[in-house]
Amino acid sequence: MASNWEALAARKRQDLLNSIPDEWRIPRDLLPPESQEDVTDFPKTSGWFTREELDITECTALELLPKLASGELQSETVTRAFCKRAAAAHQLTNCLSETCFERAISTANSLDEHLARTGKPLGPLHGLPISLKDNFNLLGLDSTVGFTSHIGDPAKYDAVLADVLRAAGAIFYVKTNVPTAMMIAESVNNTFGRTVNPLNRKLTSGGSSGGESALIAFKGSPLGVGTDIGGSLRIPAACTGLFTLRPSFGRFPTLRCRSGMPGQEAVHSVNGPLTRSLADLEAYSKIVVDSEPWLVDPRCLPIPWRSVSLPCKLKIAVLWDDGMALPTPPVTRALKTVVQKLKDAGHEVCDWSSVDQREGASLLSRMFVADGGEAIRRELERMGEPWRPEMKMYEEAKSLTGFEYWQLHLERQAYQKRYLDRWLAAGIDAILCPTTPYSSVENGKFKHVGYTGVYNVLDYSCISFPTRLTVDRSVDRPLGDDYEPMTDLDKQIQIEYNAEAVHGMPINLQLVAQRLEEEKCVEMCKVILGIMS
Amino acid sequence: MASNWEALAARKRQDLLNSIPDEWRIPRDLLPPESQEDVTDFPKTSGWFTREELDITECTALELLPKLASGELQSETVTRAFCKRAAAAHQLTNCLSETCFERAISTANSLDEHLARTGKPLGPLHGLPISLKDNFNLLGLDSTVGFTSHIGDPAKYDAVLADVLRAAGAIFYVKTNVPTAMMIAESVNNTFGRTVNPLNRKLTSGGSSGGESALIAFKGSPLGVGTDIGGSLRIPAACTGLFTLRPSFGRFPTLRCRSGMPGQEAVHSVNGPLTRSLADLEAYSKIVVDSEPWLVDPRCLPIPWRSVSLPCKLKIAVLWDDGMALPTPPVTRALKTVVQKLKDAGHEVCDWSSVDQREGASLLSRMFVADGGEAIRRELERMGEPWRPEMKMYEEAKSLTGFEYWQLHLERQAYQKRYLDRWLAAGIDAILCPTTPYSSVENGKFKHVGYTGVYNVLDYSCISFPTRLTVDRSVDRPLGDDYEPMTDLDKQIQIEYNAEAVHGMPINLQLVAQRLEEEKCVEMCKVILGIMS
Repeated sequence: MASNWEALAARKRQDLLNSIPDEWRIPRDLLPPESQEDVTDFPKTSGWFTREELDITECTALELLPKLASGELQSETVTRAFCKRAAAAHQLTNCLSETCFERAISTANSLDEHLARTGKPLGPLHGLPISLKDNFNLLGLDSTVGFTSHIGDPAKYDAVLADVLRAAGAIFYVKTNVPTAMMIAESVNNTFGRTVNPLNRKLTSGGSSGGESALIAFKGSPLGVGTDIGGSLRIPAACTGLFTLRPSFGRFPTLRCRSGMPGQEAVHSVNGPLTRSLADLEAYSKIVVDSEPWLVDPRCLPIPWRSVSLPCKLKIAVLWDDGMALPTPPVTRALKTVVQKLKDAGHEVCDWSSVDQREGASLLSRMFVADGGEAIRRELERMGEPWRPEMKMYEEAKSLTGFEYWQLHLERQAYQKRYLDRWLAAGIDAILCPTTPYSSVENGKFKHVGYTGVYNVLDYSCISFPTRLTVDRSVDRPLGDDYEPMTDLDKQIQIEYNAEAVHGMPINLQLVAQRLEEEKCVEMCKVILGIMS
Repeated sequence: MASNWEALAARKRQDLLNSIPDEWRIPRDLLPPESQEDVTDFPKTSGWFTREELDITECTALELLPKLASGELQSETVTRAFCKRAAAAHQLTNCLSETCFERAISTANSLDEHLARTGKPLGPLHGLPISLKDNFNLLGLDSTVGFTSHIGDPAKYDAVLADVLRAAGAIFYVKTNVPTAMMIAESVNNTFGRTVNPLNRKLTSGGSSGGESALIAFKGSPLGVGTDIGGSLRIPAACTGLFTLRPSFGRFPTLRCRSGMPGQEAVHSVNGPLTRSLADLEAYSKIVVDSEPWLVDPRCLPIPWRSVSLPCKLKIAVLWDDGMALPTPPVTRALKTVVQKLKDAGHEVCDWSSVDQREGASLLSRMFVADGGEAIRRELERMGEPWRPEMKMYEEAKSLTGFEYWQLHLERQAYQKRYLDRWLAAGIDAILCPTTPYSSVENGKFKHVGYTGVYNVLDYSCISFPTRLTVDRSVDRPLGDDYEPMTDLDKQIQIEYNAEAVHGMPINLQLVAQRLEEEKCVEMCKVILGIMS
C-alpha cells in the first residue's frame, strides 16, 4: 500500500473526470487556453450552453425556488442545467471531488412527480440543487477530505445536515474540493490537486471550502454548504466575492460529517451557506433552523430563527488591523469606504483595539495541534502519503497531555470572558473588519487566518460579504517604502501584494456579531448593503 | 510545607468554628448527644430559638420574598435568623466551609435602607439569604473545595453567578462543605472532615453538594446553590428529600467558580438550586435566566425562561434499573407507586431499556480521569496531603494523549446521538428513574453514581424530587435470598441495604427531560407532585 498513494490518487482523479458524461464535457475546441485567467464568462460566451441553461444557472436560489415550487420550472431541467455548469466549472477550475449526477436527476424526477401528483412542493427547498463540501457524507460517495487513505471508502450514511436539506427538497449532485484535512487556507491536496479561482485562475479561491466558492462563483451551483473552523467559509467567500454565514456552534447540525481532526472539540467546526445574495443566505438559514435540527443533532440548540429589530443607530467597531498583519491596500480602502458610508447614514463608528487578537490566534493554533498532529499523521501514514509543505505546523506538533489540554480550555474561557466584557463595555452592535488581508491572492501565497480564526475561538456569528467594491490597481497601490511592517508576516504579505494580479477582484469584509446573534448579523449586513448600493 | 497539612486543616476548622459568634454557639447543655440521629427538631425543641427565628426559618424562599419586598420583614432580621440556624446546623452536621456573617448583616442593612429610601426592592431576591456551595468564589473567602492546598488563598473575585444573585438582592452568609475536589458522592475531605445528614446523622447527606443539602434540610438556608457534574446536586437532594434542578449547560452562569478539575470540559459542570419546594426551584431558575446571564458568561445561551404547555397525556418511560445496580427496595416501591398514580391519572407509561446506561457511566468515568488524575494530584502534592481512599480511580488513572482525548469525544458524540434517536423514536416526554439506588445510606457506604452521571454525559435537564414517600422498614425489606444480583456492585449494594438504618428517610426520584428542556421538566414535575398529593 505504502507506495501506492500516487497511483490511487491518479485513478481517483480519473474516476472523477469519467463520472462526467460526454454531453457535459467541454468540447476540446471550446476549451479556454490555460493562460486565460477569468473563465466566468465561458458559459455565456462559448455558445455551448442553451439559453434556458444560462437563464436557469444565472438565477439565485430565491429566484429559482418559487418557480420550482409552482412547477413553472421542472426540477429535472434545473438540475441538469446545474450539473452541466458544475461539470464545466470542474473542467476549468478543478473544483469538484465527487459527483452523483444520475442520482440527482433521478431525485429530481421523483420531486417533479411528487409535485405533479400532490400539487405541493416537498419542502421549502423543493427541487433545488445544492452543492456540498467534500466532508458532508453522502451515502455511497467518498469523503476523502483530501486524504488518499479515504479513497474508496464510501460513506455508509448521510450527514445529518444532508438529511435535513433533502427532507426540505434539496437535490445533491456534486461535492467540492478541499485542502488536506481541510486545514489549509487554499484548496489543495495530494488527491485532487489544486482548485483555482474562476474569476482569475492565477488566484486562489481560498480554503478550506474553496471548491464550493469556485463552483458558486462560476454559477455551477445556486447555493452551497461549507464548513468553518478557522475561516474555511469566510476566506473562500472573500476570495470569490460571495456571501457566507459562519454561525455559532449549535445553530446548524454538524453531526456525521468527515472531520480532518475527528473529535477535536476545543474549537468547534460549524457549517454554513455560501451564496451569491444575502437573501439566499438568510432564507437557507431560516429553513435549516425551522427544521428543528436539535431533534436530529443532540448538539444543536433549540433556538428558533428569531426576528430582530435593530436600533436605528448602530454602533460599529472597526478593527483596522489585527496587530499581526495589515490588510492589503484594497481591503483597507473598502473598510474606509464602508466606514464613511456608515457615518454618513448616521451610524456610530468607533475603533476596535487589536489588543486581544494575537492571543485568539495563538489559542486557535494550539487547539488545532493539541493531538500533536496525530490524527492527520495517521491518515497520511496509512498510505505513505507525504505531508504537504503547508502543514508544517501539524507535522512538527507535540501532543498535549490531558492536563495541558485542560489548561488550554481555561485560557480559552478567560479569553472569551475578556472579549465579551470589552464588547459590552463598548456597547457595540458589531465589529467590522477584514475577512483576510487579501481580496484574493496568487495561488500558494495565502498567509494568515487571524482575522477569521479569532472569532472561531470566540464562537461569534460572522458574515463575510462582498462590498461591491473591486480592486483597482491604479488606486490600491502597494504601501510605500516608508511603511514599517508590524511583523515579519506583515512584511511578507505587503511585499507579496501584487496590485496587477488582483486587479478587478471583489473585495469582501467581515461583519462580526455576538455569539448566537446570527439573525442580528444578517440584519446588520442588510443595513450595510443598503448604504453601499 | 509537606508535613504541615494536618495542622493547617485543624487550624482552618478552628477558624471556621471561631467565626461563629458566641450568641450563635449552641449552649453546651442544649447540645444533643452525639448518638442522636435526627437533629432536625433541635431548633423547635431546644428552646434556644425565638418564635420569630423559628417562624422565619421555617419559611420557603417564596414565602419570605414578598415579605422582604414589602418591608413586612427586615432583611437583617431574616439574615440573622438564618445565620443562627446555619451556625446550629454546622455544629450538628459539620455542613459549612466558610462564613461571612458580618458582611451578610451589613448587606442586609444596606438592603433595608434601600427599601426604606426608595420604596422598592433591589431585585426579585431582595434581602433573601442564599447559601452557596464552597466552590462559588466570594471575594475574600477561601474556596478550598476540600484541598488543604487552597487554605488561606482567598478569592480575588466573585463567581459570576454570585454577581447575578447579588444584583437580584440575595445575601451571602455561608458556603458549604464538599468532598475533596467535589469528586466523591459523600461530602468528606481532609480539611473539614465529613458532613452528616441532619435527618439521621448516621447517614450521608450525599455529595458533592452535601453541605448544602444538610444545611437546607436543617432549614439553615431557605435556598442554596450547588453544582453537578455526575450527580452532585441530585444525590444530595435525594439523600435529604430536597428538590434540585440539574440544568443543561448554558442555562445558568458557571464562570469563575473553583473546579476540582479545572479546564475539564468533556462533560460540563453545571449549577442549580437546592430547595424545599418546586415553586422555589422554579422561581430561582426564572430569576437567573431572566437576568440574561449570557451577557456576563460567554458560555451561557441566550434562551429566555419559556412558558411550556404540556400535552394532557404525558408519555413517561420508566428506567426500573440501570443494569448495573438495582435500586434498594424503598426506591423501587416509590417508582411503582408513582407509575401507578401516573397510569391512574391517564398518562402513558412505558419501560425504558437500560441498554445504553453502562456506556454512559463508562464515558463519564473516563472523562473524569482524562488527565490521569494530574489536576487533583498536583493539589495534594503541594501539601503532601494523602489521597482519600474514595479516590482510587483518580490516584491510579493514566493521562490520555491529545489524540485519545479526541476519540473519547467521538464516542460521546455517537452516544448522545443514539440516546436522542431512541428518545424520539419512543416519543416520550420524560424518563422517570431512581436518583440513586438509595433513599440515603450509612456514612461511607455510598456507591454508584450511574443513575445521575449518564445524564451529565447527555446534558439532559433533570429534577430530583421528593415523592413524599418515606422508607418503611416493615415494607421495604431487603431482597430475599432468591435475588440474583446483576453485578458485584449490585450484590454489594443489596447486602449493605439496612432497612432499620434508613427507616423514615424521604425517597426521591429523578425526572429526566431532554437537553435544554428545563421548563418542561419543571412542569412535568408539577404534574407528578399533583397526582402524589
